[in-house]
Amino acid sequence: MFEQRGLHQRLGYQWRSWAPVLKVLSVLWMVLALFMALPWVVLLIEGEPDATAFGLSMVIVLSAVALSWLATLKVAIELKPWQMFVLTTFSWVSISGFASLPLVLGAPQLSFTNAVFESVSAITTTGSTILEGIESLSDGLKLWRGIMQWLGGIGIIVMGIAILPFLKVGGMRLFHTESSDWSDKVMPRTGGIAKATLGIYCGFTLIAMLTYWLGGMALLDAVVHGMTSVATGGFANSDASFGAYGDRPFLLWAASLFMLAGALPFVLYIRVLRGSRLALWRDQQVQGLLLLLLIVILSLTLWRMWLGTPPFEALTHVAFNVISVVTTTGYASDDYSVWGPLAFVAFFYLTFVGGCSGSTSGGMKIFRFQVSTILLRNQLRYLTHSSGVFASRYNNQPLTDEVTRGVVAFSFFFFLTIAGLALGLSLLGLDLVTALSGAATAVANVGPGLGDTIGPSGNFAPLPDAAKWLLCVGMLMGRLEILTVLVLLTPMFWRK
Amino acid sequence: MFEQRGLHQRLGYQWRSWAPVLKVLSVLWMVLALFMALPWVVLLIEGEPDATAFGLSMVIVLSAVALSWLATLKVAIELKPWQMFVLTTFSWVSISGFASLPLVLGAPQLSFTNAVFESVSAITTTGSTILEGIESLSDGLKLWRGIMQWLGGIGIIVMGIAILPFLKVGGMRLFHTESSDWSDKVMPRTGGIAKATLGIYCGFTLIAMLTYWLGGMALLDAVVHGMTSVATGGFANSDASFGAYGDRPFLLWAASLFMLAGALPFVLYIRVLRGSRLALWRDQQVQGLLLLLLIVILSLTLWRMWLGTPPFEALTHVAFNVISVVTTTGYASDDYSVWGPLAFVAFFYLTFVGGCSGSTSGGMKIFRFQVSTILLRNQLRYLTHSSGVFASRYNNQPLTDEVTRGVVAFSFFFFLTIAGLALGLSLLGLDLVTALSGAATAVANVGPGLGDTIGPSGNFAPLPDAAKWLLCVGMLMGRLEILTVLVLLTPMFWRK
Repeated sequence: MFEQRGLHQRLGYQWRSWAPVLKVLSVLWMVLALFMALPWVVLLIEGEPDATAFGLSMVIVLSAVALSWLATLKVAIELKPWQMFVLTTFSWVSISGFASLPLVLGAPQLSFTNAVFESVSAITTTGSTILEGIESLSDGLKLWRGIMQWLGGIGIIVMGIAILPFLKVGGMRLFHTESSDWSDKVMPRTGGIAKATLGIYCGFTLIAMLTYWLGGMALLDAVVHGMTSVATGGFANSDASFGAYGDRPFLLWAASLFMLAGALPFVLYIRVLRGSRLALWRDQQVQGLLLLLLIVILSLTLWRMWLGTPPFEALTHVAFNVISVVTTTGYASDDYSVWGPLAFVAFFYLTFVGGCSGSTSGGMKIFRFQVSTILLRNQLRYLTHSSGVFASRYNNQPLTDEVTRGVVAFSFFFFLTIAGLALGLSLLGLDLVTALSGAATAVANVGPGLGDTIGPSGNFAPLPDAAKWLLCVGMLMGRLEILTVLVLLTPMFWRK
Repeated sequence: MFEQRGLHQRLGYQWRSWAPVLKVLSVLWMVLALFMALPWVVLLIEGEPDATAFGLSMVIVLSAVALSWLATLKVAIELKPWQMFVLTTFSWVSISGFASLPLVLGAPQLSFTNAVFESVSAITTTGSTILEGIESLSDGLKLWRGIMQWLGGIGIIVMGIAILPFLKVGGMRLFHTESSDWSDKVMPRTGGIAKATLGIYCGFTLIAMLTYWLGGMALLDAVVHGMTSVATGGFANSDASFGAYGDRPFLLWAASLFMLAGALPFVLYIRVLRGSRLALWRDQQVQGLLLLLLIVILSLTLWRMWLGTPPFEALTHVAFNVISVVTTTGYASDDYSVWGPLAFVAFFYLTFVGGCSGSTSGGMKIFRFQVSTILLRNQLRYLTHSSGVFASRYNNQPLTDEVTRGVVAFSFFFFLTIAGLALGLSLLGLDLVTALSGAATAVANVGPGLGDTIGPSGNFAPLPDAAKWLLCVGMLMGRLEILTVLVLLTPMFWRK
């Protein structure tokens, strides 16, 4: 009897711990289900058989929502840090899973593995694809690919502004503002920032769609590319990626601008709207990103010109593809892997970089390079003088040891994750270039790798299934800033 | 008039600063010249025409010694830290230059670039070669290649024990012992340790030579391989490297042992000889290296067996080549780059690792991986608990922030140097695998790279001259633990 009650109590305790997590998850799933209605309606109107798949997917997801909602009706949403870690990881995993339902049910040509790979790649805004013949997909599926990336994009902005700084992951403490101060109950303010962020995100998306449409894209293409540009996702409606518009400089430059817009910190847009017009240009992270892009684009353009490409053509394609990779979008307007060894190596390096924190982009992120540079400069100073500690500032804030340690640890984990993943991929038979660039493009959420198979003009379909699952793990870990996931795997985490 | 006196004074000041450095350099050059006598005598006895080249080289080097010695006759040797930084870099550069003289003068088939590449590769104990038809070189040249590596080997041990910890380079403060405490004037003790180290180094070399000779090598081959094994240098007397003995397990296992002996901390041998028998096994760095080797060798052996290689043959060749790369020796008994993608990627990673600090080996070094691991573990702990600081120990010493910062900065600089070098190589037209593995093998002082050109069965000769010079810079920077060189390039360094 006593033992049974003990078990009961323990189960009750577990339930009380997990119920709030489930409750928040169910809200997120509902949003997903609502967005499934869009392609469903489109397909119904067009009379496509795919419609059933979306209808059925909505029923499944909404059932899960209803069950969770009923079960947690009386549960208050109040999350401790450990629950937020769990919630963060579980939300991305479960949403990727549910989002794959329309592909599993509606695209019988896709294996289960391929369907999951495509939806993980979408929700994490990576943009690697296993689909061939994308042009001939139903409008509903094209739309769904765009919507998945768009939802993933807003998800990561919110996570980067409100959750990661609070959880102190990878030096993100640096971006701890009132909007991530959950403990002080400034929720109304946080709500305001969330709304403003969503508004700006939607605004950018609409402008992008309109620009693409006016620039000559078909309506559906304009809508999908608008979503996947601002989300720095990189899914396109053609096997040739953005190469379908390779001879339309206006569209390439417009897309470059929207990808860049998606890769800047969204809180700064709010500040600009609230009146501090120079907020963007005064930010050290933005300055760093723009400077890096300028240097790389100019160098590679000169290199291409030297090899005989006309200046404007060289500049257009170099700028587009460099911005695409650095913002971790992953469109390709051209097969840059055949631009010669320098470009090949340069694009390999650019895969790691990433945009700004608090944006839709992945990768190491600019601020971590900047903080590391400060660390290295201080070390050289330390060798000549001998006092060991130097007061440093970043973005007009003092750079604490805590932040530096976080940044360093993140960088190590980032490269270790890529190295480990690449080793796993090589065990499955992938060559060094495919394994390394595949692992990097997954963890940095970029999209295309390098080499004959997964390069910018290639496709992830030919990889063995096990490799695709490994890459899914890599994409999710990268999207969750690695430590958020790793911490769940430590015994310490579960001890209390 | 005044201006002239000012110039005079400034020149006088400069001279007083540089003279002690020149005086020490001249001693090192003299040692080099003395060792040139060995191949010279051999060539004279054999009546080879190369003898003149060695004779002439000795005359040139001894003239430089005599001039420097005369000029600095009254100068006291007392070095400030900045002078030791300068001395360290200048000694390796000048010795590499002087050591190339016999190749420049005695091997007319070699271009100047190739001769310098070969001697830099030798003195830094890297072991990359541009020579083809090594079997048919004169005995004197074979011997000289061995001697250069052997001198480089003892040079790096002394530097690692006595100089780098004092200069606090890359977390080497961790190995700051009485033997590197120059400030406290414990020179007699330091002298004792230096003598003991030299004795042990010579002892190992003689045992290796004898073992190889008894194992069936020709006398000259035994002598050269004995020197290049213990120095973890990797020059062999055959284009097939150690593959010339690929079917003699005894020699392969003996060489594995001697390479390993060269990669362990030499101060520990002294402690063992002084009576603390377990000093080697109790050292965390040694434990880490052995554990790593065990895991990698077992995994790759099982992998090779699974692919159909008989167990003993698989174990022998895997152990030999893994130990060769991890100790940064760089012999190859077989073309491991055709063992399949897993081995290819694994050997790429192993290129970075390196042996223990205070040994002859290069690379990142085991202790830096261990310190980084502690850092990462602490970061995961920090995310679950929230106090930020954890007392950590390494090798029974408290791990200070100073050491951790040094280790982290070194790791970043190490990878940045490799990345920068690879970018330079790609600009010269080398493909990603050749550029990356070439840069890594140079900076880690290993020897062979990967890919068709510079792989274990390849040769560095086909690379463009500019690439060879870049690799020379990489080898020297790697040997000098990078920061020692970088610090010379900062304006801060020269300001005082």
